[in-house]
Amino acid sequence: MSQYLGPPPNKGHLSVARLANYWYVACQSAELKGKPLARTILGIPVVLFRNREGSASALLDRCPHRNVPLSLGSIPRSGNIQCAYHGWQFDGQGQCQFVPGLMDGSATKERRCPRFEVCEQEGLVWVYPALDEKPENGPFHLGLDKLSDHTIVVHQVDAQATLHATLENALDVPHTAFLHRGLFRTGTRNKVRVRITRTSLGVEAEYIGEPRPSGIVGRVLSPGGGIVEHWDRFRLPSIAQVEYRLGVESHFVVTALCTPVSDFHTHLTAVAAFRTPLPAPLLKPLLRFVGLRIFAQDARVLRAQTENIRQFGGEQFMSSELDMLGPHIWWLLRQAERSESTESPFEKELTFLA
Amino acid sequence: MSQYLGPPPNKGHLSVARLANYWYVACQSAELKGKPLARTILGIPVVLFRNREGSASALLDRCPHRNVPLSLGSIPRSGNIQCAYHGWQFDGQGQCQFVPGLMDGSATKERRCPRFEVCEQEGLVWVYPALDEKPENGPFHLGLDKLSDHTIVVHQVDAQATLHATLENALDVPHTAFLHRGLFRTGTRNKVRVRITRTSLGVEAEYIGEPRPSGIVGRVLSPGGGIVEHWDRFRLPSIAQVEYRLGVESHFVVTALCTPVSDFHTHLTAVAAFRTPLPAPLLKPLLRFVGLRIFAQDARVLRAQTENIRQFGGEQFMSSELDMLGPHIWWLLRQAERSESTESPFEKELTFLA
Amino acid sequence: MSQYLGPPPNKGHLSVARLANYWYVACQSAELKGKPLARTILGIPVVLFRNREGSASALLDRCPHRNVPLSLGSIPRSGNIQCAYHGWQFDGQGQCQFVPGLMDGSATKERRCPRFEVCEQEGLVWVYPALDEKPENGPFHLGLDKLSDHTIVVHQVDAQATLHATLENALDVPHTAFLHRGLFRTGTRNKVRVRITRTSLGVEAEYIGEPRPSGIVGRVLSPGGGIVEHWDRFRLPSIAQVEYRLGVESHFVVTALCTPVSDFHTHLTAVAAFRTPLPAPLLKPLLRFVGLRIFAQDARVLRAQTENIRQFGGEQFMSSELDMLGPHIWWLLRQAERSESTESPFEKELTFLA
Repeated sequence: MSQYLGPPPNKGHLSVARLANYWYVACQSAELKGKPLARTILGIPVVLFRNREGSASALLDRCPHRNVPLSLGSIPRSGNIQCAYHGWQFDGQGQCQFVPGLMDGSATKERRCPRFEVCEQEGLVWVYPALDEKPENGPFHLGLDKLSDHTIVVHQVDAQATLHATLENALDVPHTAFLHRGLFRTGTRNKVRVRITRTSLGVEAEYIGEPRPSGIVGRVLSPGGGIVEHWDRFRLPSIAQVEYRLGVESHFVVTALCTPVSDFHTHLTAVAAFRTPLPAPLLKPLLRFVGLRIFAQDARVLRAQTENIRQFGGEQFMSSELDMLGPHIWWLLRQAERSESTESPFEKELTFLA
Repeated sequence: MSQYLGPPPNKGHLSVARLANYWYVACQSAELKGKPLARTILGIPVVLFRNREGSASALLDRCPHRNVPLSLGSIPRSGNIQCAYHGWQFDGQGQCQFVPGLMDGSATKERRCPRFEVCEQEGLVWVYPALDEKPENGPFHLGLDKLSDHTIVVHQVDAQATLHATLENALDVPHTAFLHRGLFRTGTRNKVRVRITRTSLGVEAEYIGEPRPSGIVGRVLSPGGGIVEHWDRFRLPSIAQVEYRLGVESHFVVTALCTPVSDFHTHLTAVAAFRTPLPAPLLKPLLRFVGLRIFAQDARVLRAQTENIRQFGGEQFMSSELDMLGPHIWWLLRQAERSESTESPFEKELTFLA
Repeated sequence: MSQYLGPPPNKGHLSVARLANYWYVACQSAELKGKPLARTILGIPVVLFRNREGSASALLDRCPHRNVPLSLGSIPRSGNIQCAYHGWQFDGQGQCQFVPGLMDGSATKERRCPRFEVCEQEGLVWVYPALDEKPENGPFHLGLDKLSDHTIVVHQVDAQATLHATLENALDVPHTAFLHRGLFRTGTRNKVRVRITRTSLGVEAEYIGEPRPSGIVGRVLSPGGGIVEHWDRFRLPSIAQVEYRLGVESHFVVTALCTPVSDFHTHLTAVAAFRTPLPAPLLKPLLRFVGLRIFAQDARVLRAQTENIRQFGGEQFMSSELDMLGPHIWWLLRQAERSESTESPFEKELTFLA
């Protein structure tokens, strides 16, 4: 594994995964303009900026000269990033290009700031937080080009929770009937069959014979009721996707691209793509309202869960078979952290009351 | 000793006692109604609730499923406590009674949440913070039934101080003439004789020949002056009692039932019982006002003492013979912490200027 | 080395120096009046007070009785410092003089509070933070008596930075053209020669052939332009001095007397002495305004530097030859911390663009 500049490990916290050799969303493309942008990924301070041609770069957010954050600086006409303290300039590769006052300019060449690989695609800027390392593959593709008849909404939120707890929450069905009662599901319960399939890259739950969700969301998306198709997917290391299909007309996919800011803080960039019989301008504010209500309920429980876990010095979970994806997510994260091959496919079916 | 779920010990802090095998006041009976109540005792999060019959229970405030605090939940008609996240229900014994969505209800039986012994008496709910342990004896009795002609006032306050520092402060006479000058005592000093008696359960100071305290409190309780009877008592592990008798008419007992919230935070439930020639409706607001003023002065000094002790990494006390009870309280707490027999009775008399 | 009562060392922080065997400014003489004054030096809480004759004393800010800060107390007519909790009194030597209530007053003699050497000169109260130790030499002399035709302005500010980072910043020329652009220097750069001379007591940079600084300050001090004489001086362990001479008329010396409050917090007492053709009543508010603007810019960068250093667990600096004094200051601090002889004089000349 490559050099990791984050903080030392948290003792006793079993479910904290620090996977530096993966891509994470740092920001939306539109957020990165003429000023340096500070982000923290896996506890590592990162500064993002664009050069004159507009291409995005990411450096360690610490000037190698006197360790002041480069994000306090500016982008002069050179398109380099310039430190606020002494004005040292670095290009997108982290190479020092200018030290104000120095007579012999050549001396700058040996000075450099550690850099991170950056990839900009589908309106998102991704960073690979392993220092000075060239990744083998690119970031996850949302496939928005294949959803050209869908409305796309992007929203960012923060959870005070580990990556694992946030992912499990995003893909957990049983809590929706309880914590989000009325919004998402109501008290009436139906037998639903679910098939769980784990590969080396992720795990998926496919729900079979699930009636239309009885809460506001379901009623709006499919006023006529009927059977839905529903998949919940996790993909290593940080992507949670929920997909609903109601007949041929309605299709709804929310992909939560999680970025571990630090061990107990996860940033979510949620990309929702939907196509329904209802006009998008009507549906958009409703979905936004319901989505934020749901997330506020989740965020409150996740924060309390995190505080309790920290108070007790670690998790002590007791799962039931209704915890369909969480334990698999944890197992995959753990395998990835150990850089072990995860060639241990898994499949199971069960019935529960949704 | 039984399982202890509190935080790891504080290094260098000599006077921090963690005595889990004792009863502590968790709340007043009237505070525990239809909602779960969160309390922390010896650093252990506890949730209290009443079942349908009204009897009080206390569980570890951590759902065994996903470690969310049960105190965020609710009490449905079943009278169980129901977790806010997935709705798991636990009865007063900590036994899981319901997991929403699960087809095979029998699987709930092996799931349980650690519980604490609870005892409700004299309007107070006491908790025994050693997990799943049956105590030999019940909590301390205030004996309010024998004080039926007294007015009873209960007040709760918090001190940012160790249990030991709070107890010593509550029973320390010399500081009253100084810190509480005017309120409690005035500058005039009189020779007073004191007899200190320590048993295996506590220590008592009996003041002999003490004139009526010269401050507001004394003047109100005994306008005519005269000799008072006065006892200061500590009882293991957390009870401080001050008793004054002025003639046959006036009697005044304040019992501070201390609950160690954490190493440097102590909650006090002060139960004052008094009988005086003055009518209680007149005296009550006065005593309340004076009591809160006195406690505000104590709280400020205790907080500064705690901050200094933490800054220096531990206490370094230099006592005089005027520190009549504090060193004995500490010795008794330390013996109790070691679970050693304290069969080392002690008696001493001395004279000082009160 | 004598007893040191500060906190344990910070791991990984290379540039934290804790030099207890030196004098530091605790306060201005005018700040120390009838009340105790709390200060922290090298992480050690100190209380200063004056006795009846007006002479200043410094004790450890912890009553030896119950460890309450003595600075919460008061100075009664005896001129001793009196603890707020039980009223114990200590004289300027730390000797206990009175324990209220105690019958046998002689018992107080064995009780004492640790004390520090104090020296009051030139309107400043200096403390030597090695406990109960007699220093060989007195504090640094500003030599204000030789500057009787100068206007003296004293100003105190705080930097959230190590002693080393604060000193380097105070004496660093290259950042002034950048961070303080417009205020202190402007973009136009000139070749300047600098001679660096290090002795066992400090290090000095003498600037040769430097044009008048082109910012507001330079224009006001020397409207006619011309060559300036300029020295930047560091003197162990905590003194930074900047001296400018512009012709015979203008002279400007700012001495920053730094006091390390704690590892990452430095208090500066800046004594500015100036004589210019402009009348002092006109210049004083202008210099004050510019000085505070400059310091606000420095304070912001120093705080961000400190946060980054702490985030990364230590400094990782990459200097250029423009860092003329910082590395020498660090070398001298380190030698002094090891109590090693610093008989390794150093001299160097270089040219840069100022």
